[in-house]
Amino acid sequence: MKTVRVAVAGLGVVGSETVRLLRSRRESLARRLNAKLELVAVCDRAIHSKARGLRLPAKIKRFSDPSRLAACGADIIVELLGGLPAPRSLVLDCLRRGRHVVTANKRLLAHCWPELRRAQSHGSLHFEASVAGGIPILKALDLSLAGDRIEAVGGILNGTTNFILTRMSEGLGASAALKKAQELGLAESDPSRDLNGQDAADKVSVLASLVTGSWQKPDRIETQGIEGIESQDIAFAQSVLGRRIKLLGMVRLKDRGVEALVCPFLVPLAHPLAAVRDEFNAVLVQAASAGELMFYGRGAGAGPAASAVMGDICVAARDILSGVRAEAAADRHAEARPASSPWSFYLRLAALDRPGVLSSVASVLGRRGISISTIHQPGATGSRSVPIIITTHPTSAEDFCRAKREILALSSVSRQHMIMRLLP
Amino acid sequence: MKTVRVAVAGLGVVGSETVRLLRSRRESLARRLNAKLELVAVCDRAIHSKARGLRLPAKIKRFSDPSRLAACGADIIVELLGGLPAPRSLVLDCLRRGRHVVTANKRLLAHCWPELRRAQSHGSLHFEASVAGGIPILKALDLSLAGDRIEAVGGILNGTTNFILTRMSEGLGASAALKKAQELGLAESDPSRDLNGQDAADKVSVLASLVTGSWQKPDRIETQGIEGIESQDIAFAQSVLGRRIKLLGMVRLKDRGVEALVCPFLVPLAHPLAAVRDEFNAVLVQAASAGELMFYGRGAGAGPAASAVMGDICVAARDILSGVRAEAAADRHAEARPASSPWSFYLRLAALDRPGVLSSVASVLGRRGISISTIHQPGATGSRSVPIIITTHPTSAEDFCRAKREILALSSVSRQHMIMRLLP
Repeated sequence: MKTVRVAVAGLGVVGSETVRLLRSRRESLARRLNAKLELVAVCDRAIHSKARGLRLPAKIKRFSDPSRLAACGADIIVELLGGLPAPRSLVLDCLRRGRHVVTANKRLLAHCWPELRRAQSHGSLHFEASVAGGIPILKALDLSLAGDRIEAVGGILNGTTNFILTRMSEGLGASAALKKAQELGLAESDPSRDLNGQDAADKVSVLASLVTGSWQKPDRIETQGIEGIESQDIAFAQSVLGRRIKLLGMVRLKDRGVEALVCPFLVPLAHPLAAVRDEFNAVLVQAASAGELMFYGRGAGAGPAASAVMGDICVAARDILSGVRAEAAADRHAEARPASSPWSFYLRLAALDRPGVLSSVASVLGRRGISISTIHQPGATGSRSVPIIITTHPTSAEDFCRAKREILALSSVSRQHMIMRLLP
Repeated sequence: MKTVRVAVAGLGVVGSETVRLLRSRRESLARRLNAKLELVAVCDRAIHSKARGLRLPAKIKRFSDPSRLAACGADIIVELLGGLPAPRSLVLDCLRRGRHVVTANKRLLAHCWPELRRAQSHGSLHFEASVAGGIPILKALDLSLAGDRIEAVGGILNGTTNFILTRMSEGLGASAALKKAQELGLAESDPSRDLNGQDAADKVSVLASLVTGSWQKPDRIETQGIEGIESQDIAFAQSVLGRRIKLLGMVRLKDRGVEALVCPFLVPLAHPLAAVRDEFNAVLVQAASAGELMFYGRGAGAGPAASAVMGDICVAARDILSGVRAEAAADRHAEARPASSPWSFYLRLAALDRPGVLSSVASVLGRRGISISTIHQPGATGSRSVPIIITTHPTSAEDFCRAKREILALSSVSRQHMIMRLLP
């Protein structure tokens, strides 16, 4: 029986679980692959305590410096280090040596896509775990739907914020919901990349780059997190609009244009995404022939991420065993340019509680040609400032932003505001 | 640019759509694959009218006899003939000649699995479209979840019956709902294989064989269709039990045992499968590491099936271009044996409307050690016979069947009855 040698860099929760699975599922994997998957090396900054914790046999090589892993004799290198510089040099080095690399590092992919793709003409790169954890969305897009035409892909890509929004919809305040997520290990001690949408934007970048075949830089993806969402938005969305607030990451393709964005959406209660609760993820795909598909599952956690990593290890092992040569990465839509489409918007303002405010806001929108769907001004709260909540009919984001700036410049309107979009 | 030659056998709705897509997406596929996919031959019993309808150029070879397709020079042969004998000999012939074969034929796979697997050691066989149409469930199980341990897989695998049950839940009678499905092209003129669960059983057989690595014959899968379901079952499930009736196909793996069945289930309203309406399919996967995953989409129709076929063609083309050798199919769990687990049952009886009937039924269940959850005897309808509806706590299927036989032998109980299971 042939042997495929595997090395794992980074023994955090996902790395440790991957090592555990490589060892505990050894026999069933050997039956499946008709070959042995052998763990030959591990690497971690705190290698001694980590290797002891995992009770690794002495024959497995241990490194604390990831740069030594590329030459350790492994056929497949699994990169689960986290961060950017060390993973980048490890992955590029391994690929250039013709190795197969598995990574869950969405930041690395989002920020270094072109050089990774170029390096892939030597070795092969697998990254199912980088988007939506245990949900096999990337292979679905890359293989199963290879002959179809993807029109849109996106959904709930960040479990932390979905957990927080779920708790808020049950009445918890934003900071209490975050604290709950941290207690349960669903949010990091510094949750800013989750809350501000950057984590989701990295995933949207990976999805968009994969689907279009050309790099969609994260800094060109319009990104808004959940930080400005208040309990009154959630309550208003549910009771008045019959909608739930979800942070969605989305890629839409039209002709050769790409619209990519991350922002809070008001989702109709009957929409499948409205039912996705807690830390679960869900990805919708709109394809020309297959129609609408939905993939639902756990987007984070040691088990789901390790499941995706193990799947990639098996695919890489099959490629090695069957003698696949690495594919030169074709830039399919090198000319993909940014695009945007009309959306219905939600705008919450804080205004002075005096006559004429509403009409001055409405007249700005009217002048800009933006059609109002609803205006709500909940009863005065006794304070000087009252909320005004406006929803619009579909309008271009540029027009809406211009109108918003004019409205916020009105003397009777505070700078504080919240914008979301309505999912049709 | 290299060329991969494709032949399509069977120009029904899916075959015609596949030919159309191969031609209309020619350029985007060439960019994706960095190679040309060229349609070189088609085959159909009514080849002349079909080829004319598709406006095929003259250089494409046309056959009415599928047996001539194996030697037509194509690298990939797409089998969409339908039926069993002709597809079987075409596919085996092509595989033995080392060709790559794509098929959507679930009956062929379910009934000829072992010889197809053996023949695969020469050519390769792709069959994503055979289960759940456009939903990429098979590649998810075979590739993405290759390193995970599948514990269960199943769900709504037949769109026709799901459409009928959806209409019945809205008040339509069974035969009117079937007629509606036929009008919309969602049911064939002879819908018996859909209604009696055989179509779903073939799909369960494919899923079970793929997941276990050993053939799970369709005739050993306990199969019950939707034929006995009456409007009163649907109404009772909704109003009294808070559940919806769905025809589910299911595979559960325990140790080395396999439980495979197709039957109507009462699904809790809050369960994701309860929300799957009309002709849509949904597949749930329970995996040891990834947890619960759901895949949702269109299970039938020309577009979704052709999308899956096109995906398989692309995967086969990549294998050809990268020089993959066909894999010898390893029998992973050759010893998989039938298993069964306890279920809660629903039993509808028709009994004489006289005192003591209920207690005699209850006492049979008691003697057999079956614990009753609820008994309902809707008010007398004026007729001699009244329905009795019983739900049980989890019990073994053998015990339940024995009790059922005893109950149906009671003089006060009619032979007419309906059994379903309750999904936890």
